[in-house]
Amino acid sequence: MKYTLILLLAGFTSGAQIQKEQLNLMPWPQNIVLNDGNFTLNKNFKVNITGNPNHRIFGGVTRFLRRLDGRTGLFFTQDFVTKLNEVPTAQLQINCSKSGKIGLYEDASYHLDIKENKITIEATSDLGALHGLETLLQLLRNTNKSFYFPNSQISDFPRFTWRGLMIDASRHFQPVDVIKRNLDGMAAMKMNVFHWHLVDDQGWRIEMKKHPKLIELASDGMYYTQEEIKNIVKYADERGILIVPEIDVPGHGTAILTAYPEIGSKVITLTGGTSEKNIQETAIETYGLERNAGIFTPTLDPSNPKTYQILSEIFDEICPLFPGAYFHIGGDENEGKDWDANPKIQEFKKKNKLSTNHELQTYFTMQLVPMLKKYGKELMGWEEILTQNLSKEAIIHSWKGSNEGILPGQSLAEAVKKGYKTVLSNGYYIDLMYPIESHYLNDPIPKGIDLTTEEKARVLGGEAPMWSELTTPETIDSRIWPRTAAIAERLWSAESITDVADMRRRLETVSFRLEELGLTHIRNKEVILRNIANNQNVKSLEEFSNVCEPLKGYTRNKNGTEYQMYSPFTLFADACTPDAKDALDFDAAVTEYLKKQTPENKAKVAAFFSKWITVNKELNDLSANAPLVQPILPLAKKLSDASQELLLVLDNKSVIKPADLKNLIEQCNTKDHADVELAVYASLKKLI
Amino acid sequence: MKYTLILLLAGFTSGAQIQKEQLNLMPWPQNIVLNDGNFTLNKNFKVNITGNPNHRIFGGVTRFLRRLDGRTGLFFTQDFVTKLNEVPTAQLQINCSKSGKIGLYEDASYHLDIKENKITIEATSDLGALHGLETLLQLLRNTNKSFYFPNSQISDFPRFTWRGLMIDASRHFQPVDVIKRNLDGMAAMKMNVFHWHLVDDQGWRIEMKKHPKLIELASDGMYYTQEEIKNIVKYADERGILIVPEIDVPGHGTAILTAYPEIGSKVITLTGGTSEKNIQETAIETYGLERNAGIFTPTLDPSNPKTYQILSEIFDEICPLFPGAYFHIGGDENEGKDWDANPKIQEFKKKNKLSTNHELQTYFTMQLVPMLKKYGKELMGWEEILTQNLSKEAIIHSWKGSNEGILPGQSLAEAVKKGYKTVLSNGYYIDLMYPIESHYLNDPIPKGIDLTTEEKARVLGGEAPMWSELTTPETIDSRIWPRTAAIAERLWSAESITDVADMRRRLETVSFRLEELGLTHIRNKEVILRNIANNQNVKSLEEFSNVCEPLKGYTRNKNGTEYQMYSPFTLFADACTPDAKDALDFDAAVTEYLKKQTPENKAKVAAFFSKWITVNKELNDLSANAPLVQPILPLAKKLSDASQELLLVLDNKSVIKPADLKNLIEQCNTKDHADVELAVYASLKKLI
Repeated sequence: MKYTLILLLAGFTSGAQIQKEQLNLMPWPQNIVLNDGNFTLNKNFKVNITGNPNHRIFGGVTRFLRRLDGRTGLFFTQDFVTKLNEVPTAQLQINCSKSGKIGLYEDASYHLDIKENKITIEATSDLGALHGLETLLQLLRNTNKSFYFPNSQISDFPRFTWRGLMIDASRHFQPVDVIKRNLDGMAAMKMNVFHWHLVDDQGWRIEMKKHPKLIELASDGMYYTQEEIKNIVKYADERGILIVPEIDVPGHGTAILTAYPEIGSKVITLTGGTSEKNIQETAIETYGLERNAGIFTPTLDPSNPKTYQILSEIFDEICPLFPGAYFHIGGDENEGKDWDANPKIQEFKKKNKLSTNHELQTYFTMQLVPMLKKYGKELMGWEEILTQNLSKEAIIHSWKGSNEGILPGQSLAEAVKKGYKTVLSNGYYIDLMYPIESHYLNDPIPKGIDLTTEEKARVLGGEAPMWSELTTPETIDSRIWPRTAAIAERLWSAESITDVADMRRRLETVSFRLEELGLTHIRNKEVILRNIANNQNVKSLEEFSNVCEPLKGYTRNKNGTEYQMYSPFTLFADACTPDAKDALDFDAAVTEYLKKQTPENKAKVAAFFSKWITVNKELNDLSANAPLVQPILPLAKKLSDASQELLLVLDNKSVIKPADLKNLIEQCNTKDHADVELAVYASLKKLI
Repeated sequence: MKYTLILLLAGFTSGAQIQKEQLNLMPWPQNIVLNDGNFTLNKNFKVNITGNPNHRIFGGVTRFLRRLDGRTGLFFTQDFVTKLNEVPTAQLQINCSKSGKIGLYEDASYHLDIKENKITIEATSDLGALHGLETLLQLLRNTNKSFYFPNSQISDFPRFTWRGLMIDASRHFQPVDVIKRNLDGMAAMKMNVFHWHLVDDQGWRIEMKKHPKLIELASDGMYYTQEEIKNIVKYADERGILIVPEIDVPGHGTAILTAYPEIGSKVITLTGGTSEKNIQETAIETYGLERNAGIFTPTLDPSNPKTYQILSEIFDEICPLFPGAYFHIGGDENEGKDWDANPKIQEFKKKNKLSTNHELQTYFTMQLVPMLKKYGKELMGWEEILTQNLSKEAIIHSWKGSNEGILPGQSLAEAVKKGYKTVLSNGYYIDLMYPIESHYLNDPIPKGIDLTTEEKARVLGGEAPMWSELTTPETIDSRIWPRTAAIAERLWSAESITDVADMRRRLETVSFRLEELGLTHIRNKEVILRNIANNQNVKSLEEFSNVCEPLKGYTRNKNGTEYQMYSPFTLFADACTPDAKDALDFDAAVTEYLKKQTPENKAKVAAFFSKWITVNKELNDLSANAPLVQPILPLAKKLSDASQELLLVLDNKSVIKPADLKNLIEQCNTKDHADVELAVYASLKKLI
């Protein structure tokens, strides 16, 4: 039945005119016109490039050919594209008037025109042309025997100039191949800013030649060499992506202070001497890399000239590695506890007429501005850097919202009203396991706050931060993808593109296609499940994972100490993702049934219950030889118990009291097992 | 049913005494004694290191802890092990008397002793200790709720000192992460030599600072930077693995000659001038990277001093990157065609009294010896380098066998009889898709040839070559693993360990555990199948792949031109592997049935037929929206047709002529479809 449905939806005969609603484009283009007819692919398909593009177009086109050939198995004869106008008669003609510069405000538009025998991509620069190639790949369709592109005309350009993804490589180090495959994913989703969070309390991740202690003492041996960084910068450039590095100061400073405790803010009092003569001295605190998650006090000393000397030398070494015009200095979550307790720092505040810690931090931040200016870089920081003395050239990274006790969009609006450029991350925290819908409908331009056109123009765009407290190289892709594709659409497409159901439909294909870039968000799930199942059949685990979601927000890692940075992330919660696959289908079945209680609709709901009863039995069998299955058994039992009774309810055969039935369902509303929750609880409740 | 069987075999209650036959060790240790009782793991499990080991033991122990924690989910409290004697009370005590040197003939033995409350690993060096840790990981067992090691004593050491894997990074470039995860796989299998085939007709893969043309013109932009090479050498060292680089000369020279045509052997004749004066000149040939597979003529000119100048400069740059004592110069498959056709080279031969091309090649090879000696390196080459003038210090790499028209083991025996050290690769060509059994039973000491003890001692061991004509980074792991584990056992374990069925049983767990090292041999199969299925359900493809194997030997890539190096390797044959999973089970069912025609035995055979009939139907349904399924449909139909008739045969209801039945089965013996063959053909034949 499901089969037939897919076939009907897919419109698999090329004779039928395709409707826009059948396309799997993401981000959705600004303008699209579908015409009759198709361009059918064969092995002689070739590409030709004209104009004055940057050299990156050649690699881009070669990769395009390999991906298209991998999907179609046509054995294209064109191999590596390395020159302009190599094949003037090629079916795909790409023309770019100029070489694209990596950075903001660059024209990234393109026009794609597909006709029966000819495809053209016209773009201002290679950057737009690369976007056009991604759109073309997404337009690929097929009959039962051949592949084709539907005749169409697409004019496209981004709504925002900052379409970012941040990866935290400090809390869990993310090796080069993780970064590269995610850059490929970004490029496929027309994202253009990779924010690389390189330093935090849990580790310093850049090789430093003048300050090797940072690596020797504060990286556990896990860091990027400078050559690897250059290599990644080049890789990103080839995909049209700007890299913005982040060195988080003055808070989140444990790693730096592990190497250089002398620039820390904490003083400790030593008491010694004899009973006659009591000696009290202060000494500097020593630090060790943080292994837990949370907000910690280690903070750089803003009153110490050596702090600026070391930072200046660090920037001297790091800035040249990154050709981009922006440098992120963090600046978040400095609670100032060690500042308050340090008499020297209090003295310094008085002397410099800095009445609050916030003003002291601004003083600190302003010292960094010239260090970065020296390399032509503008300073960017999390919203805490914003105070009245801050240079208007700084970019404010807005991240706070309801969780931090302020209205979503509030800090962003304040910043643009004060004249700052801003990037929104509040609402895009993909590490927190919230449903895709919440990110997708979170517009960078805040609703309900009046902003002038000028103020709106200062909203550069948005960025999805992937913090890595609870993710490893094996699981990070499934935390980033496919949800980040929806954020990419929010940042590229028109404001009016907000149909969640349609986005979900398109996402299914988009997510599948991201696999060809090496992303592991789909394939690694079974790896985790096989480990849990002790190499037995994973079917029941797989099915149970389709109704379970990892605990959301900051609830999974209680007090930040349940998981250390070296804890196992090979558990059931690590195999689960937000937007649990079966939960939506179940909710749809329940809704249909409640609307119209036909035998068919009842059967659909009942099928879920029967499945979950079976899953519970099978998980119990599995657990006999798989200790890692044990923690999920109580949850599987709860769902099975509720399912058994609800099957009776459907047949009007339930004899238990309403309160007992309610209780059975309430049992499913728990966060006590295996760090996951049942995503079907809300739908179960609808049935009583 | 299958479930119950697994549970019974697993012996999942810790009360029962484990038998050796239940252990999943590979390579099988030299001596093992199992005792009553167990060491049960809990989160306080810790490791302590004493003695004088190399620093690599710390990383090794830390990785051991993370892997064990990932399997058990126990949340060990010990994090990074960085010092000697950190936890004197630890349950696992490792003691090494000296620091291990990376290279041959190093003592790699260890003694592992597991008692109720204490585990000890005693080893001469950290190299043996690392092997001991791998054995310990393989000993992990479980009840339904806990993990434990069975009390036991193991004394272990390798039979051969050269236990190698070769990866060809030229024909298809294999990025750093591919190499790293395979080094991890090697270490897990106690292999100690990684032979890195870095240059061939299809590409030069090392950054060269003095000779950048090699990269600019002969790599398609795909190469290792020198820093990446150093990084990989370090990574290998940390895992006890020696790297032997290979620069293949004087044949397989297309890549070098693409950059430096002036040292090529081919001359071309140019005819020009006027009708009065005919001018004939010779000029050097120009070369372009080879895109096909095969043996090609481009060969370095051994008579040209510039050849030696360039090679000497190349070795000057490459040798220091590799601290190991061996350098592989290839030397294979030089057919000398361009030498014969070049008058200057013929002249040179005469002048130097070199009567054959073979002698000319030896002359060439001998020029390289001092270039390598300068860096303390011994020369190694494929067996063609062997002639009577060759220095006895060279290592002969024996690769020829039946396919090349000589007896297996013949060239190896000749070499050791002549006083050379040798490494066997004939019989270990894992790229050729032969069944694991053929590799497993291929002993480095040839059977039926008399060798003295001294001669036998010159057999250093063996090496599995992974040539990459038909493999990409996405598929290479499934070509290497798990079959290479069986070769590793042949090279480590006693000669008498030859029970194929027992090896297969152990391999199932070993293969599963290799996943935790990041190897993709299991997980990437579905990625390929999803692409073929166009994101529909892959079940039928999966089931069909379990009876299909890629064409063997050199039959898949007809004339070496069916696949170019840039062709798609995303096809059904790329998802299939040797030792097709269901083929063995089917053969067992057929054998049982033919022995005893009980209803149960009949039902088992019939179940396969029913499955294959269904698979055929489902593949046809799938193909309606998946063009890449089309090429396998004829094969699925043949199996289905034969199955339908054989179902009738089982029930004595078949009415067709014996010849027609035979014909139906013979139809299954085909190599005409999708570059795969049906692995069940031989078993089907048994039924008639």
